[in-house]
Amino acid sequence: MKPVNVGVLGFGTVGGGTYDVLTRNASEIARRAGRGIRITHVATRSPDKVQQRLQGQVSLTADPFAVVNDPKVDIVVELIGGNDPALELVKTAIDNNKHVVTANKALIALHGNEIFAAASRQGVMVAFEAAVGGGIPVIKAIREGLAGNRINWLAGIINGTGNFILTEMRDKGRSFAEVLAEAQALGYAEADPTFDVEGIDAAHKLAILGSIAYGIPLQFDKVYTEGISHLTGDDVSYAEQLGYRIKHLGIARRVAQGIELRVHPTLIPEKRLIANVDGVMNAVLVQADALGPTLYYGAGAGAEPTASAVVADLVDVTRTLTADPENRVPHLAFQADALSNTPVLEMDEVETAYYLRLQAVDEPGVLADVTRILGDQQISIEAIIQKQAAKGADSIPVIIVTHRVVEKQMNAAIEQIEALQTITDKICRIRLETLSRD
Amino acid sequence: MKPVNVGVLGFGTVGGGTYDVLTRNASEIARRAGRGIRITHVATRSPDKVQQRLQGQVSLTADPFAVVNDPKVDIVVELIGGNDPALELVKTAIDNNKHVVTANKALIALHGNEIFAAASRQGVMVAFEAAVGGGIPVIKAIREGLAGNRINWLAGIINGTGNFILTEMRDKGRSFAEVLAEAQALGYAEADPTFDVEGIDAAHKLAILGSIAYGIPLQFDKVYTEGISHLTGDDVSYAEQLGYRIKHLGIARRVAQGIELRVHPTLIPEKRLIANVDGVMNAVLVQADALGPTLYYGAGAGAEPTASAVVADLVDVTRTLTADPENRVPHLAFQADALSNTPVLEMDEVETAYYLRLQAVDEPGVLADVTRILGDQQISIEAIIQKQAAKGADSIPVIIVTHRVVEKQMNAAIEQIEALQTITDKICRIRLETLSRD
Repeated sequence: MKPVNVGVLGFGTVGGGTYDVLTRNASEIARRAGRGIRITHVATRSPDKVQQRLQGQVSLTADPFAVVNDPKVDIVVELIGGNDPALELVKTAIDNNKHVVTANKALIALHGNEIFAAASRQGVMVAFEAAVGGGIPVIKAIREGLAGNRINWLAGIINGTGNFILTEMRDKGRSFAEVLAEAQALGYAEADPTFDVEGIDAAHKLAILGSIAYGIPLQFDKVYTEGISHLTGDDVSYAEQLGYRIKHLGIARRVAQGIELRVHPTLIPEKRLIANVDGVMNAVLVQADALGPTLYYGAGAGAEPTASAVVADLVDVTRTLTADPENRVPHLAFQADALSNTPVLEMDEVETAYYLRLQAVDEPGVLADVTRILGDQQISIEAIIQKQAAKGADSIPVIIVTHRVVEKQMNAAIEQIEALQTITDKICRIRLETLSRD
Repeated sequence: MKPVNVGVLGFGTVGGGTYDVLTRNASEIARRAGRGIRITHVATRSPDKVQQRLQGQVSLTADPFAVVNDPKVDIVVELIGGNDPALELVKTAIDNNKHVVTANKALIALHGNEIFAAASRQGVMVAFEAAVGGGIPVIKAIREGLAGNRINWLAGIINGTGNFILTEMRDKGRSFAEVLAEAQALGYAEADPTFDVEGIDAAHKLAILGSIAYGIPLQFDKVYTEGISHLTGDDVSYAEQLGYRIKHLGIARRVAQGIELRVHPTLIPEKRLIANVDGVMNAVLVQADALGPTLYYGAGAGAEPTASAVVADLVDVTRTLTADPENRVPHLAFQADALSNTPVLEMDEVETAYYLRLQAVDEPGVLADVTRILGDQQISIEAIIQKQAAKGADSIPVIIVTHRVVEKQMNAAIEQIEALQTITDKICRIRLETLSRD
């Protein structure tokens, strides 16, 4: 069979990696796919620089629209990132009856509904394995491997930069700011780290995971998003003393009232496998009704890990080139006409356990006031630990671990506790999940 | 679209689980697959007992050939296990142009080449996700998710019974025999535990993993297989003191001379994620050239976890019912005409590191003899630890950890060391893998 022609938009880290993998492993890939998959057209901002790197007959252009309008291109790989001009390019490719493979989580999270609708009308596929968890085939696992299950919840370490920072804070007792500066120097974190450390990147990915787990349209705007920049070394250390680790998790959960979609720092028991996923690695833990827990671990970023997912998508799409569009794996795991309108819950309505750190004056009766307020809100306490005051400090840290409670009750309790005269500072509140089976 | 009709052979644990999952999650499955998937014909040894459990119109028979010859059945699910009559049933189903889904690792490992050839001739699929790692979608991950990669090696905990025994031996300091008896009482281990504890079940699964990783025909007879029944609590404990855990691994590795396929107890660094996979859980770690390491973790057995994989296969097969047979995922990941004849290495030729436990008389010069013999065989030593003699014992244990060496050199050294007058017992030799990247 004649080779499949691929056009690539963007020849940065992942674009170069995709070219390298397709070239180096051309024979293994063709042995699997049954035909060759070759890059024939590349759009890049600096064609001259890329020129020396490419072998064989690859057209180079500075105009990405030349690629999506190239009649010889069968599949377009979009690796530009962001929304503009990526969205217009992808839509043009679809209008031109080309399949699309993308690593662009922001594009899918924000415009996936519109893109998939257009793709379905044209009978083409838009594949996006590389958008979540880098090279880990977690989209495939959830969409296909778990197709017989109702998914109860999933929890993922889906931003490597954040996990690197938290791992260093724990292992070396360093501050957030210090580790962030190092991550930037190492190239793990962008010059503007907001997307990573404030959870926006993770929220893009969680919106995608939530949709394929529950068959709901993409709703990035409904994802509760909290970053890790406010975490202190003390909290990391107290968590450890209590047998927990703090991970920045994206969590999707189905409850009776709807679906939770939330990204926030989370205490999890240190004995869980996912608590031991360190450094820049990613992992997604999925709890499904028939299968129980499964975990998918690997590199969440990087040139060739991400390229691995892009190439896997290229092979999948190659296999469906002659297939009946109705029998392909649906974009969001469920058939487009079978998506559900189950609501995404407000964070107020979410139930979790909590770690609270209070700064209190060291005098009798303070704990009585705090525990009374928690009791009034039906919040039951699992542990209270009163720490030593730091030298010369006018207050002592009090750590409270609670059982599960609806967040609005916790908010009410926190407001009342912070109003106490004996509480000297804002409360640090970190959510806690046991990640046990139910 | 009209529902797909499934015939089930065998209604034991997994058969019942498959029925339960297809029934309970019928709506989610249909929303994903685009059509219903329903069991219409069941063969079981005791139709009367099964009768009450089934809802709707399901034909029951004691004759499995009635199912594979039923013209209304589209897909046959083989859950009888073993080779006879499973092989004949599967071949008859294929001859009747039916797709097959099976959880039968022995059947695939021993007769897969013949079965897949027959299936390809008829243009039908034989799906076997449930044969390795229970419900973990690891076949799918390797065959499809890693399609862009050359796989360097993989190492799996692929027998839950063995892992349960090793976990208990480590955590509670119990003996192999004691834990095995408990595993049998709990129903984790069969009355005849040979398949599990002597590594035969793991070798079936490794033969399959090796084929899909490297595109070689199934060669179960070439898998080196060593069980865990000879392991002592002392070795488990010494390993721990050295920073290792002993896991019963199935390992496939590509080296310059060919492919290694081996199942044996293995010391691995305790900090590796897979070293922390405990109890009956399974996990497969795959090191691929582009992607690096990925790990797939979950339940390797049980009614509904295995059913989860069976149903995922049913959904996959349903999607390909109208597809071009040439464009389906090949049975062994690589196109049938592109399989490779890369040889499987004899164990003699395999290179690993080793843990050795010697029993030596406590006198000067013993270690000098031992280290001279190792040196003569070009075996370099990473650590030697001399333990205290047990009370009243006439010898002391000496633990040696070596660097990597070809096994035949180690065999020669062991033979010479055991011939020393000062060595009082057979040497305990356990292979050691760092599972680092290369």
